[in-house]
Amino acid sequence: MPYQTVPGGICAPRGFAAAGVHCGIRHNHQKKDLAIIKADVRCAAAACYTTNKVHGHPIDIDREHLRDGYAQAILVNSGNANTCAPGGRELALATCELAAQTLGLPADDILPSSTGVIGQAMELAPFAQGIPAAAAALDHSAAGSLAAAEAIMTTDTHPKQTAVEFTLSGKVCRIGAIAKGSGMIHPNMATMLLFMTTDANVAPDVLQSILSDVVPATFNQISVDGDTSTNDTVTLLASGLAGNAPLRPGTADFDTFVSALTEVAEAMCRELAGDGEGATKLLECTVSGAPDIATARAVARSVIRSNLFKAAMFGADANWGRILCAIGYTPGDFDISRTCVWLKSAAGEVYVCENAAHHPYSEEEATRILKEREVDIRIDLGCGPAAAKAWGCDLTYDYVRINGDYRT
Amino acid sequence: MPYQTVPGGICAPRGFAAAGVHCGIRHNHQKKDLAIIKADVRCAAAACYTTNKVHGHPIDIDREHLRDGYAQAILVNSGNANTCAPGGRELALATCELAAQTLGLPADDILPSSTGVIGQAMELAPFAQGIPAAAAALDHSAAGSLAAAEAIMTTDTHPKQTAVEFTLSGKVCRIGAIAKGSGMIHPNMATMLLFMTTDANVAPDVLQSILSDVVPATFNQISVDGDTSTNDTVTLLASGLAGNAPLRPGTADFDTFVSALTEVAEAMCRELAGDGEGATKLLECTVSGAPDIATARAVARSVIRSNLFKAAMFGADANWGRILCAIGYTPGDFDISRTCVWLKSAAGEVYVCENAAHHPYSEEEATRILKEREVDIRIDLGCGPAAAKAWGCDLTYDYVRINGDYRT
Repeated sequence: MPYQTVPGGICAPRGFAAAGVHCGIRHNHQKKDLAIIKADVRCAAAACYTTNKVHGHPIDIDREHLRDGYAQAILVNSGNANTCAPGGRELALATCELAAQTLGLPADDILPSSTGVIGQAMELAPFAQGIPAAAAALDHSAAGSLAAAEAIMTTDTHPKQTAVEFTLSGKVCRIGAIAKGSGMIHPNMATMLLFMTTDANVAPDVLQSILSDVVPATFNQISVDGDTSTNDTVTLLASGLAGNAPLRPGTADFDTFVSALTEVAEAMCRELAGDGEGATKLLECTVSGAPDIATARAVARSVIRSNLFKAAMFGADANWGRILCAIGYTPGDFDISRTCVWLKSAAGEVYVCENAAHHPYSEEEATRILKEREVDIRIDLGCGPAAAKAWGCDLTYDYVRINGDYRT
Repeated sequence: MPYQTVPGGICAPRGFAAAGVHCGIRHNHQKKDLAIIKADVRCAAAACYTTNKVHGHPIDIDREHLRDGYAQAILVNSGNANTCAPGGRELALATCELAAQTLGLPADDILPSSTGVIGQAMELAPFAQGIPAAAAALDHSAAGSLAAAEAIMTTDTHPKQTAVEFTLSGKVCRIGAIAKGSGMIHPNMATMLLFMTTDANVAPDVLQSILSDVVPATFNQISVDGDTSTNDTVTLLASGLAGNAPLRPGTADFDTFVSALTEVAEAMCRELAGDGEGATKLLECTVSGAPDIATARAVARSVIRSNLFKAAMFGADANWGRILCAIGYTPGDFDISRTCVWLKSAAGEVYVCENAAHHPYSEEEATRILKEREVDIRIDLGCGPAAAKAWGCDLTYDYVRINGDYRT
């Protein structure tokens, strides 16, 4: 392994402080609703956004502020998505101005982000109070990352963060991440909000090209409910404070960085999918033997997205016919007749389908395997060299409860 | 209206008898599991099938038997889909042979069909006993149609049938239909099994072209759970016993027939969607102002398919942001900013979204409207002349219960 997991989340890399506070966008005073992530220096920055035609006003501002490839702070609120909201663009710009004055930065080095209810007007007053409070609380330690991770949560049941350490030509580098997920999670993008930091020295165009390669293999392969959010954003800031030579494609350092970033991304995919709304299980689907990467990814997503499959997993029912069904309606041209399926967890592995037909197995053993908190579905299409993964969760009573009663 | 609803289902048109019996494919002796629909004369026949790469063995046989455009009987079982099942093709052929001998027809005028669990081997013994029993029970009255409609049910909560009457150049004609739906319902095809009969005189190629036009606007616009079944089939038999001149495109009679068939199809769509697994509500989405039909249909389907929207409808929550979100991720190029949305039911109508932003309305009134058994979602995209409908149902605790525990 060229990297190891370290504590500290987005504050693990050198040069990043974070904070999370309650500013009053949410009524519940116990729930933090505003986060700031601030770098000590101006950072190369890269981002990917939702492909939904309806998208949050902050995303427009983000694109404008990232045009030069650099940024120094991220301002995020939960509780209101600032989407389909009257005056939303002006409000997002005003929050950047406030943050710029408070942090002593140019407004176009601030990246705003919002998550929460769609279609409700957002007000400036909570930001006017919250931004100075968050700025005063900025912390370079693990506590700063945790507070920010808490502040961006909506229906998440726990804060999500990770960090890894690796070396680039002898210099110790780190990548850290925080995320919020839970509902309205489906490619592309699948994450709602995910912020990553690194102290590696990477130029903006190289950073964007790496991020744009890693996202389709990771975040775009998550599905909680098939609904592509209006506010999905992945942002990566690189401070360069690790002191490595600028990363160049085609070098061993480049591969190490991509591999470490992929590790962070996969870890966050598992976090996001496993904490999908109402989920009792993380489902990881690994497809091999596909004719090409696009088909491998599409098949893995089809299975992970199937409501019937998701409900069967909730019931610990090894109903492999539903897996075949979902593979079968995946667009693309491949021969279904060589498909084999295995179900695997910490409790063992069963081979349930051989060449698109029943393979003898014990239902009792299958049930025991499917009752685990994490279940792997392994599919081999037997018609090519390509492989891919996707992540999702089961469909449960609680998903219905949470979403039948979200605004009340 | 050029047509009126009449009783009798698939036995309403002249020349059709039907029956449904329990033959032992299912363990529950109270549940009929085998149906025969038999025409008095050889019929012009048309059909559309699932697009799933995994499909039932009977569908292959159907295609072969329909190559000449004619058929005289339909043999259907519930309880086992005969899909991904060892020896399934041979078994389907053997059931046709049995039915052919019993009914005194050539085997290639029999259309077999199966619905139920995927991946389990089916046995011939129940058919050997059930086919003679069903043949002996064949009935030209409404009771025959009802028995057949009961026999094809799986998780449906009630049998589904309808019939309409109209005239073609002075001759009284009828179209009847029975269907089963409930789960694994999503374009294309959306119906699992739907059998229609008519006594109109229509040549096979004209019949197929009419059916192929009506299906995309109706059955392919239903979604219960986003899962495209492996066994979906729509079949239409025309006995010609009404004595009308053969139907020709470009005539008033042709338009009358298409319109009557569309009426039958829409009625069955509402039946199928309203009785979706676990459903408490029928949702009908009408999209207007689209740039083209494909976009209109895709937008209607996106909304009807969204888990978040479906769960909100279960909770009678006028969360129009989720409707906009689902419109926004529909593929296709259109301007979202002119979108308006209304929610309507027997209890009234509210205008909730104007030009992609909040339109003032009473939440109390909206909740009262959404508590009705049937809810219409009206969407105007404001950018063209095309319109379409789609049908679905809410996402409920019972959907999860039914599908978490289907095989046990």
